[in-house]
Amino acid sequence: MFKQFSISAPSVSIKVDLQHKIDNKTKPLGSLGQLESIALQLGQIQNTLMPDVSKPAMIVFAADHGVVEQGISLFPQEVTPQMVMNFLMGGAAVSVFCEQHKAPLRIVDVGVKVDLEDHPLLSQRKVAYGSQDFSQQAAMSSAELAMAIEAGVNEANLAIDEGVNLLMFGEMGIGNTCVSSCMMTAITGITAQQSAGRGTGLDNAGVSHKAQVIEASLQRAERETGQAMADWSPETLAQQVGGFEILAMAGAMLQSAQRQTAFVVDGFICTVALLFAQKVAPQVREYAIFAHQSNESAHRILLDSLNAEPILSLDLRLGEGSGAILSYPLIQSASLFLNKMASFESAGVSGSN
Amino acid sequence: MFKQFSISAPSVSIKVDLQHKIDNKTKPLGSLGQLESIALQLGQIQNTLMPDVSKPAMIVFAADHGVVEQGISLFPQEVTPQMVMNFLMGGAAVSVFCEQHKAPLRIVDVGVKVDLEDHPLLSQRKVAYGSQDFSQQAAMSSAELAMAIEAGVNEANLAIDEGVNLLMFGEMGIGNTCVSSCMMTAITGITAQQSAGRGTGLDNAGVSHKAQVIEASLQRAERETGQAMADWSPETLAQQVGGFEILAMAGAMLQSAQRQTAFVVDGFICTVALLFAQKVAPQVREYAIFAHQSNESAHRILLDSLNAEPILSLDLRLGEGSGAILSYPLIQSASLFLNKMASFESAGVSGSN
Repeated sequence: MFKQFSISAPSVSIKVDLQHKIDNKTKPLGSLGQLESIALQLGQIQNTLMPDVSKPAMIVFAADHGVVEQGISLFPQEVTPQMVMNFLMGGAAVSVFCEQHKAPLRIVDVGVKVDLEDHPLLSQRKVAYGSQDFSQQAAMSSAELAMAIEAGVNEANLAIDEGVNLLMFGEMGIGNTCVSSCMMTAITGITAQQSAGRGTGLDNAGVSHKAQVIEASLQRAERETGQAMADWSPETLAQQVGGFEILAMAGAMLQSAQRQTAFVVDGFICTVALLFAQKVAPQVREYAIFAHQSNESAHRILLDSLNAEPILSLDLRLGEGSGAILSYPLIQSASLFLNKMASFESAGVSGSN
Repeated sequence: MFKQFSISAPSVSIKVDLQHKIDNKTKPLGSLGQLESIALQLGQIQNTLMPDVSKPAMIVFAADHGVVEQGISLFPQEVTPQMVMNFLMGGAAVSVFCEQHKAPLRIVDVGVKVDLEDHPLLSQRKVAYGSQDFSQQAAMSSAELAMAIEAGVNEANLAIDEGVNLLMFGEMGIGNTCVSSCMMTAITGITAQQSAGRGTGLDNAGVSHKAQVIEASLQRAERETGQAMADWSPETLAQQVGGFEILAMAGAMLQSAQRQTAFVVDGFICTVALLFAQKVAPQVREYAIFAHQSNESAHRILLDSLNAEPILSLDLRLGEGSGAILSYPLIQSASLFLNKMASFESAGVSGSN
């Protein structure tokens, strides 16, 4: 099902001209730091000396997870649809920050446990009423996996067809840090003790229990598939221990890259979605801009393994895409300095001795 | 001359109510990280549960420095007025980012070496045509110091009188990292080797020479004043080794605090201005929001000594107030989440177990 993705690398040929343009702006060489790397990346992705991120969009995928039955989250599952309503009504962090930056917000139900009423900001793409409890059985069927991926692909296409030039992704799903940690361990082989974190605020005992659930789930899955997790295909991994919103995000990231569109990776859960997308098509990584280093312990390990330089480090641990939208004005600044600052020549400013 | 400043502390009585409001927003406790501390600080400064930073303004102070005669900067002194022109024409980084965030930009000439033509964005408050070379003699007279401070006070007053509720400060002056390092050593006692950094791009030999100039200048000043630098009053310190734009910024910070208005501290040079302002009136510190951790080596030491948590860490080393304006949307996000996010109660979202 992943054969549809054939991602080409961002332009290499434009890199020298971009760097030349960056270096001739009226500022000491390299003095805009990370904004310069982002400008370079955007220019390569869009294959232009004038990259444009003036039409951003935020897509938040929401779903529920059977594994919450194992008591791995501090919040009850009813919070998933409650928070979706909060997004739609404009009262959540991501809503407030999207309004601040005039970025349209879309919520996609790919697996919330209850039915949601129609709303102009809501896409109804429910795959199932939550995934199965993967500590007991596979999280989803092959058909469900395909639907989740397709939901992400379709949402990315809709946005890009409307002219969106920077996609931001977020997620909502009680229990999804547990799912993400489980996927991370399955993909990277680090222990569940390393990949499991506090989520929305677990104490030490809670984190330890979460790690045990992850370990037991992976053992169950290895037993049932008859394969060591290191040998799992992306399909097997996703069906065994995936989550609908995480896989939909991965699908959206893959499609975004396929269509040469930069996207912003939010916190831990989104970064795991990228890790999974990378297992499908490694070049997706080059289209990713990393919004922030979150407070979730495994996020640092994950970002390091991706050689990622996150823009922000504000001790956020909220999810929802909140970090992505907070980083947006800085990504915009990266494109604006490249497009609007004077060069030494045009401003008549002397260079360094 | 500093007797005019009598700064009261931000409100303590409102702190509990602010924290309660923050904690009841629809998000896991503490999950907006540093934005929560900024929201708390803004609320205490403005003594309200609905802090407002929707009217920001950027004031960039520019001046020249006699000590550039000693070859401590990579760029020639003519760049100071050239960059001022660039600010006024909209081609500099700070101009582009201020336009992005619709923050008015004002440039204040407090000591550029040449005359500047009138311009709607320029305040003519020239104290002198540059400071004296402080490796040879005192940088300025007592009267000049008073004029520099007053320039900052007046600019802060004008902005606050117009309804500005968040002040951002920047600076331009070839050689001013050397002046800042010298002031930092004089105030904190750390060595010139520790306080001197690369500025706009010095190599190791350049940094080492800069440190020697700083040491020699401080020895000269101790000799002439007959006092160890640790015993210098703020007046003596400023006259001996100050710079006009740095002192004007300190004056503006002191006046901003006096009028209960939060202000944003940009990079190394601005942070030294705050350090000086703190020597005059310690409570000024509580009105400061720290924009970023720059790439200048002494900046980290300085921020630690101020117990400051900078918002950004993007390897910037441009000055001009560029880091301050880049941090602005995040300061705005801090006030907006406090004002606009739903509470658990208002949104009907269940709390944690």
